[in-house]
Amino acid sequence: MKVEIVSIGTEILLGDIVNTNSQYLSKELALLGLDVYNQQVVGDNEERIMEAFELAFSRSDIVITTGGLGPTDDDMTKEVASKYFDRELVEDKYSREKIEDYFKSMGKSMPKNNLKQALYPKDSIVVENNNGTAPGIIIEAKGKVMIIMPGPPNEIKPMFEENIKSYLGNKTNAVLYSKVVKIIGIGESSVAEKIKDIIDNQTNPTVAPYAKNGEVELRLTAKANDKAEGLRLIEPVLNDIRERLKENIYSISNETIEEVLGKTLINKNLTLASAESCTGGLIASTLISYPGISEVFMEGAVTYSNNAKIRRLGVRKDTLDSYGAVSEQVAIEMAKGICKTAGTDIGISTTGIAGPGGGTPEKPVGLVYIGICINGKAYAKRYLFKGNRSKVRKLTTICALDMIRREVENIS
Amino acid sequence: MKVEIVSIGTEILLGDIVNTNSQYLSKELALLGLDVYNQQVVGDNEERIMEAFELAFSRSDIVITTGGLGPTDDDMTKEVASKYFDRELVEDKYSREKIEDYFKSMGKSMPKNNLKQALYPKDSIVVENNNGTAPGIIIEAKGKVMIIMPGPPNEIKPMFEENIKSYLGNKTNAVLYSKVVKIIGIGESSVAEKIKDIIDNQTNPTVAPYAKNGEVELRLTAKANDKAEGLRLIEPVLNDIRERLKENIYSISNETIEEVLGKTLINKNLTLASAESCTGGLIASTLISYPGISEVFMEGAVTYSNNAKIRRLGVRKDTLDSYGAVSEQVAIEMAKGICKTAGTDIGISTTGIAGPGGGTPEKPVGLVYIGICINGKAYAKRYLFKGNRSKVRKLTTICALDMIRREVENIS
Repeated sequence: MKVEIVSIGTEILLGDIVNTNSQYLSKELALLGLDVYNQQVVGDNEERIMEAFELAFSRSDIVITTGGLGPTDDDMTKEVASKYFDRELVEDKYSREKIEDYFKSMGKSMPKNNLKQALYPKDSIVVENNNGTAPGIIIEAKGKVMIIMPGPPNEIKPMFEENIKSYLGNKTNAVLYSKVVKIIGIGESSVAEKIKDIIDNQTNPTVAPYAKNGEVELRLTAKANDKAEGLRLIEPVLNDIRERLKENIYSISNETIEEVLGKTLINKNLTLASAESCTGGLIASTLISYPGISEVFMEGAVTYSNNAKIRRLGVRKDTLDSYGAVSEQVAIEMAKGICKTAGTDIGISTTGIAGPGGGTPEKPVGLVYIGICINGKAYAKRYLFKGNRSKVRKLTTICALDMIRREVENIS
Repeated sequence: MKVEIVSIGTEILLGDIVNTNSQYLSKELALLGLDVYNQQVVGDNEERIMEAFELAFSRSDIVITTGGLGPTDDDMTKEVASKYFDRELVEDKYSREKIEDYFKSMGKSMPKNNLKQALYPKDSIVVENNNGTAPGIIIEAKGKVMIIMPGPPNEIKPMFEENIKSYLGNKTNAVLYSKVVKIIGIGESSVAEKIKDIIDNQTNPTVAPYAKNGEVELRLTAKANDKAEGLRLIEPVLNDIRERLKENIYSISNETIEEVLGKTLINKNLTLASAESCTGGLIASTLISYPGISEVFMEGAVTYSNNAKIRRLGVRKDTLDSYGAVSEQVAIEMAKGICKTAGTDIGISTTGIAGPGGGTPEKPVGLVYIGICINGKAYAKRYLFKGNRSKVRKLTTICALDMIRREVENIS
């Protein structure tokens, strides 16, 4: 079954935004075993949107559109779709109420043009949007299907995951079953080297490595008739990979590092606090994106200034003067300090030079110390990260969380 | 003059890579005053590439292709182009020598299929590639132009910058000059309503609104002969918009909220500290992404547990018991507390229910109080945000930073 993605929005044609929606959808469609042979991008223009629809349906069975569902006049995806399918636009009462509630809860009056977002082509399926005011729409007609989705990536992803995926799954027979192995601590090329023969020789499942933000993912994808067969095909290959990469693997269930770490801490009844300098709250903020974390994450301190390091964490002025704020010694005292003042089992700390300024030949941009205090012992590790400010801070955060994970896994 | 971008590569259709080339080229073309009305993505398939070329030339004057210039058999952009224009492929001696030299300098023997990269359709222009082995090609025929470029972004950018830009510049006279107005505090539809007549009646500059992550952007784009004229065209429209949207506008220079806030705090010599519950470090972490912030951002506390709120910030147990952790009263005490213990001019605090669990009918998921303590006064605002955990936390962060900005702007 052929699927075509039509992205609608002048902002894409002007290069104001990168079309990550097409990439996300393409990847998901490939995993469903659906073929994408063409993608189009077209601006907010009635005639050209219509041409794009005609072209897409001349060669594809399913057309997925993104964008053009906003409240303003230049948003016209639904209007053109209703013309294309010759179905009048009618109001969805539930969507209208949701939009009205949204504005009421914000204590704002609803601009009239927002009601446009509650319209849909008659006799089509309205798909709930839990992250925005524009619902999605599925139109089935003449053996073809059009799936209309909003533009913002943070609305598309949950909508696809929650509703569209299962709808499309029913349209295809072979299922693709996949397993994601997540790895921190060795780079993509080292991973590839260690399992080169597996990658080269496997056809079902296929094994593909991806690198992102300091992590490596291996995606194992099996084509099977059902989930049980998929699992059976994947299992021996997965076991082989686990034996070779050992403790570098932190998840085989597509969890995030904060989720894995949070669950382990809760299981083992261990509490944690953080003292951050260069990461500036990113460790705390990452941990807290796992909802269960409140049971074990007691407190975070963002001690950016020397003064705060001394006052909040009890880092000694002597240590700061002798070794500098970015040093192994300060990282250790920070970790010990937060452990003590927060009364937790584990303390994690970061101090480093995230850049762009502040680097010297001895302490260049990218130099980071991560300190940990656990079970009475405290130590720090030295890292030299490449990349801009944001990347250095992200890599530090990932390494810090992984450092805790490795320590905690050894505690019975 | 209409330009169309045709991206060639099955890896894009599989979602393995994001099509950043199209975004880069679109932005550059817009700045040259060239109109991009369509983009296409097509896989490594002769028939479909030919169809894409035919379609593109049926509606555009210039077609720019990216990708499909590699040494393997599935790279066939030049082959299809030579068929489309009916010109035989001949070898470019200079390119051949460059490729041979490249392999010699790497101490490797050249695979024969690499010579394919030195071929070009007869009578066309060969464009040097200083970052790879595949040269670019410009074909002029029948009043149309095809510009063939390689796929890797690090080859495309310098090639466009060094050679293609000046070639295209000669084909157009006008430049596009644009200004971005950034807004927090009112939604996209309210912005659109307030300046509807401007959006509807303006043709030069055009005015287009975009919403993202709790912010709204207005892009004013003028077509002019030079930058000075562009500025002259934009100025009166910009002034009109500023008068209508007033303090909701936080930047007209495409800065981030943390940058604007950071600069204002430094200018006015005001120090800041944060006490975060539901945002869990996201405010501190966002502030710290502005490198200059260390001068004024003294300290952040992530006080997720009641215990930490009491111990670190001096929130009274009474207040927590009577009103609950998510309350106006606690937000105020948190803001006062961090101000006092950190010794800063301003304290900002958040407490809320980010979800997915923890909501009740009285205090639903999305309920957030943001507290501020400044200049001896302290108060909190109530918000009810829609969206998942991550969105609630992001919106809270944006609103908190904006709340500080509005207060600080009034301080002389």
